[in-house]
Amino acid sequence: KVGRNLGEVTGLGRELGVIISDDANEVLARTRPHVATVAVSSYMADVSEHLRICAEHGVNAVTIAEEALYPWNTSPEITAELDEMAKRTGATLTGTGHQDTFWVNIVSLMMGTAHKLESVTGRASWNVDDYGPEVAGDQQVGRTVEEFEAWLRDAERPPSFGRNCLGAIVADIGLTPVSASTRTRPVLAESGMHSRALGIDVDAGGVIGFTDIDEVVTAEGIVLTFEMSGKLYGEHDSDINEWDLIGEPNLQLSNGSVPTQMTTCTQLVNRIPDVIAAPAGFVTVEKLPRLRYRAFPFA
Amino acid sequence: KVGRNLGEVTGLGRELGVIISDDANEVLARTRPHVATVAVSSYMADVSEHLRICAEHGVNAVTIAEEALYPWNTSPEITAELDEMAKRTGATLTGTGHQDTFWVNIVSLMMGTAHKLESVTGRASWNVDDYGPEVAGDQQVGRTVEEFEAWLRDAERPPSFGRNCLGAIVADIGLTPVSASTRTRPVLAESGMHSRALGIDVDAGGVIGFTDIDEVVTAEGIVLTFEMSGKLYGEHDSDINEWDLIGEPNLQLSNGSVPTQMTTCTQLVNRIPDVIAAPAGFVTVEKLPRLRYRAFPFA
Repeated sequence: KVGRNLGEVTGLGRELGVIISDDANEVLARTRPHVATVAVSSYMADVSEHLRICAEHGVNAVTIAEEALYPWNTSPEITAELDEMAKRTGATLTGTGHQDTFWVNIVSLMMGTAHKLESVTGRASWNVDDYGPEVAGDQQVGRTVEEFEAWLRDAERPPSFGRNCLGAIVADIGLTPVSASTRTRPVLAESGMHSRALGIDVDAGGVIGFTDIDEVVTAEGIVLTFEMSGKLYGEHDSDINEWDLIGEPNLQLSNGSVPTQMTTCTQLVNRIPDVIAAPAGFVTVEKLPRLRYRAFPFA
Repeated sequence: KVGRNLGEVTGLGRELGVIISDDANEVLARTRPHVATVAVSSYMADVSEHLRICAEHGVNAVTIAEEALYPWNTSPEITAELDEMAKRTGATLTGTGHQDTFWVNIVSLMMGTAHKLESVTGRASWNVDDYGPEVAGDQQVGRTVEEFEAWLRDAERPPSFGRNCLGAIVADIGLTPVSASTRTRPVLAESGMHSRALGIDVDAGGVIGFTDIDEVVTAEGIVLTFEMSGKLYGEHDSDINEWDLIGEPNLQLSNGSVPTQMTTCTQLVNRIPDVIAAPAGFVTVEKLPRLRYRAFPFA
């Protein structure tokens, strides 16, 4: 795609004044943009180099790399290094995406309507068939329970993104975490299912994915839990976002069928003014202003 | 209750260092509190005198009077007068309550996750049987449809609180309202029902309350609608808070069964630090920081 016009590559039907480049240093030095959007990778170890280039040029950057949402608890050293560099050059670095509002800020806002809470429990899901054969395989689709348990025993998996989400909520409210844990359980087919991504059938009782269950216990007596299921969907399944708050009073939140991929893009774009206006450093979303609808004059 | 100990009157089982008084001027001058909570009246015409006394003494005040949530559109003169006085004495005046998060700030936050919106429609309800015979009578419980229509034709009703909620959302996002309207339709019993408050039975087809439908059309092309039903509940009814956002993408919010009375109290209390910290004047909730859970050390 390098050297081609952005309007052509995106299928916009008209040319834009932007030629695609693979030389970020040259482009940032020449164009000096207000902000860069970084939409590659999921983990800090992989995305940090991209963020570093932006910070070196004093360019604000906002990314949908999932761990970047609140990387202070899972990659503290890389994050501190980027934070320091960004503060030196006056850039802001921020991770956003679907999690920004739906798994952090709307949850914290709901918590603000309670007098006293004992537990906060969220459930979300994504369809492994939406992300190709590699992801579906990684998610153990088609394995037996025995194969799954054997894999899980030896798997070296990076921290689950639920830790980052719960970390942001805990930071936002100023709670004191005393322990954090992650459990993983398989999701089994209730009847025969077909995986588009893998082109295989899974019998009833076979593994169609798994659920990571992150839990943070706080000194203030609130237990926060987030259950994230990546699984093969049946015809009535869709992405969900459901939270139960137990305390005084009990509270509930549901967002029905959630368009996760779209709300990842929309929040990346709608966060741009906040990231430009934020102080320098690695600034996580719970420290940004409440996300607002951007009613452009040409809308 | 005047002259009695607050701990005794509230049934706390122990005395507090507070003697109940009906002389607000004397109490405010003597105690010089950081904040006063005002939990009387619903309309600005009635609550303004209480807020004025606080402002005169330079005391911040937060009230659950419904119209005070965003009174700039329904009582602009009283609000401007209070705003001016509060700015002179350094006090902040704010209206909060259940509406703060559930009908304004969570809705605006959800809107922030959309690229482009055409309409935002909310539905909420309350049980007329929870507020005594006068309110149930005002809500036309037990009337025939003909009696309801005759009443509605001649009724001189104050602006519905939906206007204040939609006004706060419009102000928060910086939309440009071009028209605002309120319609009212009766809610009819589907089968026979009993009103505790009035001690009467209502036959199928009889009026069990009504729905106020507020609508604001904006220059940006978004139509905001809020449907508020005050009606006699059947055994499976509860207070609801449901919002549908139509646009790119479509989005949904539901809070299940909502403990409205409790979340009115909790938000009144949790808003206190925000009101104390806010700049002087009449400061509405969409301008305050996102409401946060207050994890007191003694919790």
